[in-house]
Amino acid sequence: MTQHNTSYSRPVIALMTDFGISDSDVGVMKGVIAGITPDAHIIDITHNVAPQNVSSGAWILAAAYRYFPRNTVFVCVVDPGVGSSRRAIAMHAAEWYFVGPDNGLFSHVLAGQPIHAAILLSNPKYHLSHVSSTFHGRDIFAPVGAYLAEGLTKIFHELGTPIDPTTLQRLEREHATRRGTAIDAHIIHVDNFGNLITSIPLTMVPELFIASQVQIVFPNEGVVVEERRRFFAEDPNDGAAFIYGDSSGYVGIAVRNGNAAKTLGVGVDTNLTLEISIK
Amino acid sequence: MTQHNTSYSRPVIALMTDFGISDSDVGVMKGVIAGITPDAHIIDITHNVAPQNVSSGAWILAAAYRYFPRNTVFVCVVDPGVGSSRRAIAMHAAEWYFVGPDNGLFSHVLAGQPIHAAILLSNPKYHLSHVSSTFHGRDIFAPVGAYLAEGLTKIFHELGTPIDPTTLQRLEREHATRRGTAIDAHIIHVDNFGNLITSIPLTMVPELFIASQVQIVFPNEGVVVEERRRFFAEDPNDGAAFIYGDSSGYVGIAVRNGNAAKTLGVGVDTNLTLEISIK
Amino acid sequence: MTQHNTSYSRPVIALMTDFGISDSDVGVMKGVIAGITPDAHIIDITHNVAPQNVSSGAWILAAAYRYFPRNTVFVCVVDPGVGSSRRAIAMHAAEWYFVGPDNGLFSHVLAGQPIHAAILLSNPKYHLSHVSSTFHGRDIFAPVGAYLAEGLTKIFHELGTPIDPTTLQRLEREHATRRGTAIDAHIIHVDNFGNLITSIPLTMVPELFIASQVQIVFPNEGVVVEERRRFFAEDPNDGAAFIYGDSSGYVGIAVRNGNAAKTLGVGVDTNLTLEISIK
Repeated sequence: MTQHNTSYSRPVIALMTDFGISDSDVGVMKGVIAGITPDAHIIDITHNVAPQNVSSGAWILAAAYRYFPRNTVFVCVVDPGVGSSRRAIAMHAAEWYFVGPDNGLFSHVLAGQPIHAAILLSNPKYHLSHVSSTFHGRDIFAPVGAYLAEGLTKIFHELGTPIDPTTLQRLEREHATRRGTAIDAHIIHVDNFGNLITSIPLTMVPELFIASQVQIVFPNEGVVVEERRRFFAEDPNDGAAFIYGDSSGYVGIAVRNGNAAKTLGVGVDTNLTLEISIK
Repeated sequence: MTQHNTSYSRPVIALMTDFGISDSDVGVMKGVIAGITPDAHIIDITHNVAPQNVSSGAWILAAAYRYFPRNTVFVCVVDPGVGSSRRAIAMHAAEWYFVGPDNGLFSHVLAGQPIHAAILLSNPKYHLSHVSSTFHGRDIFAPVGAYLAEGLTKIFHELGTPIDPTTLQRLEREHATRRGTAIDAHIIHVDNFGNLITSIPLTMVPELFIASQVQIVFPNEGVVVEERRRFFAEDPNDGAAFIYGDSSGYVGIAVRNGNAAKTLGVGVDTNLTLEISIK
Repeated sequence: MTQHNTSYSRPVIALMTDFGISDSDVGVMKGVIAGITPDAHIIDITHNVAPQNVSSGAWILAAAYRYFPRNTVFVCVVDPGVGSSRRAIAMHAAEWYFVGPDNGLFSHVLAGQPIHAAILLSNPKYHLSHVSSTFHGRDIFAPVGAYLAEGLTKIFHELGTPIDPTTLQRLEREHATRRGTAIDAHIIHVDNFGNLITSIPLTMVPELFIASQVQIVFPNEGVVVEERRRFFAEDPNDGAAFIYGDSSGYVGIAVRNGNAAKTLGVGVDTNLTLEISIK
């Protein structure tokens, strides 16, 4: 049973920004939303995207959006180009809506879902009356998201001028490359437990737990990980790093009751090779 | 007037995890909940439980749950054993419901409340259709919490197989031991202000503010605290550590406008003795 | 179009504290609110106000409250004097309500808005049945805020004894002082990106982007900033600090894709002079 089978009515708005939670920015965005769509259910994905790191924000969004209900409006603001000519957009992709800057933040959605339509947020009727040049999260994206969550397809095409979806910005895809029994890849995320998430989709290594041997080599660090586990507590011995299938859908590396990033001295962007032996 | 007197209808789900708020994990759990029970009021207790520290999570929950409305469903995930044979459970205790791993996280609830029933979460109808081996918060506990908040007793017994509540895991109780006029105890929590919370319930020291003298000795650190205050601003002089009754119901140590943990060089698990003089 | 034009019904409660989010304090306040006013939409402004820093809390609130809907109840707790004789108050200012300690936290609201009425929270009917001496956020401010959000003017005068609003505590105003073409001021806030917010309202420098030259001098640090930009991405060159109009309504200093506070070695309270040349 998944959440997608249920009928749904209350508007859901999911927020992801790099604003942190020590300033009032996120609260102000929610205040704006509550003034427009009082019944909105506002859900934070995270506000701790590394400041101005579009690539990191794109990955966090990619791991999350599929678990939200149909018609959720994602308001995403990692926006180093705010106030410049970068476009402010909304798009309707599969069963969800996305609002934010057109700077690659939605790359993984563009790559993985059908895009029904995209629109330039050029209609000031759906913005705050005064738009600053530095805080479009408050002045454009929050109010647009609030109106959109309420009106959905009825409001979508009122938000501005249609855009050809093929012109939307995409980050250079962060590929993992398979050459026979070796996959060249890198670390794309370090989570709260210090687990290392690689750029290798589990679907690219169906033999991960079947092959007689699998190892991940970090060539620059001289580190090799070759233990495999199906879950964190499989072996009662703590301390050794192991390969596992992360719940995000990618190959991960963890240390039980420990921090793999610290233990191995490895972090975001570190290159690696996964090698498979099948006898 | 307390919140317990009010009639209540909207489902409340309180979340406590060690997932942090920099990954999307907590947002994803809320997305799953919103898809099942759109009207849920989701409240975060905290997501900054020290990673995989079941004992610390148990204490934070203990200080919080009594203030939530009747029928609140607590979804609590501090779960180093995820994917292993540790049981996933729900329990109905006093006027609340608790969902999470059976690893001692609910020890203080078990010790302090009548347990009406407990159940093993073995019915996959109430889980996501694909259950990973590393993220039961998303795949089991969030959907179960959402269905339970909506259906309460109607759904509780559908969630799986009944368990004998006496078999539920309990942490070794973190006792404070009274020997005449001395109590041996330790620090169980350091709060955001650096206040030190001891394992001594205020109910164990009714003479705290009556006795002619009270002192707390940290034998290994060679530190003695003997001032007492009923509230933080009682004495305008800053800087000296003092004993007070913490709002969690335990004896605390604070420094006005300062950080007692840093001032005294004391932290979680430090042993102490409270000594009472009555003349 | 602004949020103020919309009719509104669901009660909104905005929370700002210095409790952090690692303890259960904020969650407990929300549990208390949910028990009294189940339909409340609770919005966090921030809980990371520097501990016991009333001045910083006052500024964060000042930058935020105008963006919240009519009848929002702000429950604000930065309260080093909890348990002492400092007054617990509610006030009705312009179209909003404010609840918290009378210690200067509402200074900017008092300075900027008409105050319709203020009240001492002396009626225990609207508090929890047991009031601690250290956690009025839970025992007084949360329940009062919940009842007030539900009842608004009907409940306001029931909360206690009227107070003369002119007696409410105000912080010494953090002035910026203009002497001809120079303005003496200081840094009042450093945001999540390291941007430096000065105490100079943009309305005090209408010529900011018109004057032939403008510079900000930090005399003690020997630092001068003289570039000006209308938005962060105006110049593709990263690294140089520049002056901009912050979305909070104050003059700011930033480094594109960088951290101005770290780059310049400047923080909260650092003195500065803004100098204007008009030829």
